[in-house]
Amino acid sequence: MSGRRHVDVASLVDAARAGSPRAVARLVSMVEDAGPALREVSAALAPHTGHAHVIGLTGSPGVGKSTSTNALVSAFRAQNRRVGVLAVDPSSPFSGGALLGDRVRMEQHATDPGVFIRSMASRGHLGGLSWGTPQAIRVLDGAGCDVILVETVGVGQAEIEIASLADTTLVLLAPGMGDGIQAAKAGILEIADVYVVNKADRDGATSTVRDLQGMLGLAGQYGPAGEHDVDRWRPPIVKTVAARNEGVDDVLAAIDAHRAWLERTDGLRARRRERAAREVEAIAVAALRARIGELRGGAALDVLADQVATGKLDPFAAADVLLAETAD
Amino acid sequence: MSGRRHVDVASLVDAARAGSPRAVARLVSMVEDAGPALREVSAALAPHTGHAHVIGLTGSPGVGKSTSTNALVSAFRAQNRRVGVLAVDPSSPFSGGALLGDRVRMEQHATDPGVFIRSMASRGHLGGLSWGTPQAIRVLDGAGCDVILVETVGVGQAEIEIASLADTTLVLLAPGMGDGIQAAKAGILEIADVYVVNKADRDGATSTVRDLQGMLGLAGQYGPAGEHDVDRWRPPIVKTVAARNEGVDDVLAAIDAHRAWLERTDGLRARRRERAAREVEAIAVAALRARIGELRGGAALDVLADQVATGKLDPFAAADVLLAETAD
Repeated sequence: MSGRRHVDVASLVDAARAGSPRAVARLVSMVEDAGPALREVSAALAPHTGHAHVIGLTGSPGVGKSTSTNALVSAFRAQNRRVGVLAVDPSSPFSGGALLGDRVRMEQHATDPGVFIRSMASRGHLGGLSWGTPQAIRVLDGAGCDVILVETVGVGQAEIEIASLADTTLVLLAPGMGDGIQAAKAGILEIADVYVVNKADRDGATSTVRDLQGMLGLAGQYGPAGEHDVDRWRPPIVKTVAARNEGVDDVLAAIDAHRAWLERTDGLRARRRERAAREVEAIAVAALRARIGELRGGAALDVLADQVATGKLDPFAAADVLLAETAD
Repeated sequence: MSGRRHVDVASLVDAARAGSPRAVARLVSMVEDAGPALREVSAALAPHTGHAHVIGLTGSPGVGKSTSTNALVSAFRAQNRRVGVLAVDPSSPFSGGALLGDRVRMEQHATDPGVFIRSMASRGHLGGLSWGTPQAIRVLDGAGCDVILVETVGVGQAEIEIASLADTTLVLLAPGMGDGIQAAKAGILEIADVYVVNKADRDGATSTVRDLQGMLGLAGQYGPAGEHDVDRWRPPIVKTVAARNEGVDDVLAAIDAHRAWLERTDGLRARRRERAAREVEAIAVAALRARIGELRGGAALDVLADQVATGKLDPFAAADVLLAETAD
């Protein structure tokens, strides 16, 4: 049984690397479900990972994230890069597996074998990205994507978490959305590697850019164009009209410049090491929880908790017992 | 050194149990800081815990939580019960240790040795109660409080978490606050053991009560007064004007009825076991994280993460290595 599964996983990985969207979809489902094959899939993929550039894309509702993602996919495809898209919807109660809700916008890419699109709900932790997101990134990376776009609504935790998953984080704003800048003030300053002011043909685009420059200037993060010192990345502000594909090449140039800077400063390796450290730790914690749940036929925690609740044991001593038993 | 600290903790616990507010404050600080004395304090307190009835009190801003807490404290004191108050402010960036911000309202209790008041920020996890809250409850319990009131603003996570900490959860509403009922619809149905409609002298109190009855009726949680079957608690709705102490005795009666029901159905033990289980598990996880951080002089996780980031190892295999090393 285990042998048979092994064959399946290896074949699936081969098929995914050869460009089969069905194989990629199957692998994403396997890691997303966190089923018994998760470990095997992860091990089979590992040797093929580390190539893709992971791009996070976030912003308030209405700034044009979907349109921008679509335009970026087209631009990457024009460079013949293989693209994976993960659309994470933290508000969706549904599990992943479906194409994006608004399929129409991606229709032009739906039949392109160089593009893989997947929407995911955020299960597992409140308001944040799902446990499955890093695993799904790993699948797309191992399947040979050159670029992986992870799109999420910029609300609360998800916004911060996307930056911890991405090599390069794009924060989208649009003119006339005061909340965009407000949100920016709250926490976006630290996470954005590139600012994209979309809908730049609208009234107020200039003042949105100016507000942003002022804010970044105060934070010491903005200087004259091109004035990037070696140690420090000053997030550029790029204007786009994604619906008309205007400025999209500038976004690509900014992404590539950021990537080059990351490689020059060893920042890429540091980011990825940090990302992997978080992932490994989360897996270790989940494994500990699972072991605790299995101790003494599942009764250990309840018995200890009862002793704590009745004052016979303090919770730290109880935790020591649990840890000692899980280590056996 | 360890011997000296032991003497200090034991004396502090004795002093706290004898009614010294300074000793209680010191112990709360020690557990809140999660310093080296935390375990010792917890062990010294354990034999004295399990007595206090923990009452959670939550509601939207403006419903009169502070006034209600104040009125409840007076009512409990009139029964000669020792009272602890923890005011948890999830929005406060400040750490605990101070008295409540609006000291004036508690002034009448500030010099009463039968009342201990503490305000706490929620540090540690976003939007939720602090790691220190269950520890502080344990201190107040061990110090001999008969009743512990945990007051928190009813926003998001904190609201749900308070119910997991409390034996009895009060949800406060006020007339003319449509959002109160809206919030109720969202998640309060499951957490409230007693509904308190405060400011009941205002216009709209009757319709707030009726709305609530309708909502609970639909959920099968409301029946004619007194119609409590053995297995099931139907949360009563109590009207108060806390600022004039009206209806407060009815709240006390509802709390005592809920407590009696909990004891009759073994629900109290189950709730407390569940609460302790969560606490013990959280401590075990924190201990694992700490051990991981110390492995190989703090380098183990980084080394493994680097191997994962470069595709030499998959994250599950890396987590296995970590767990094996922490178990040594």
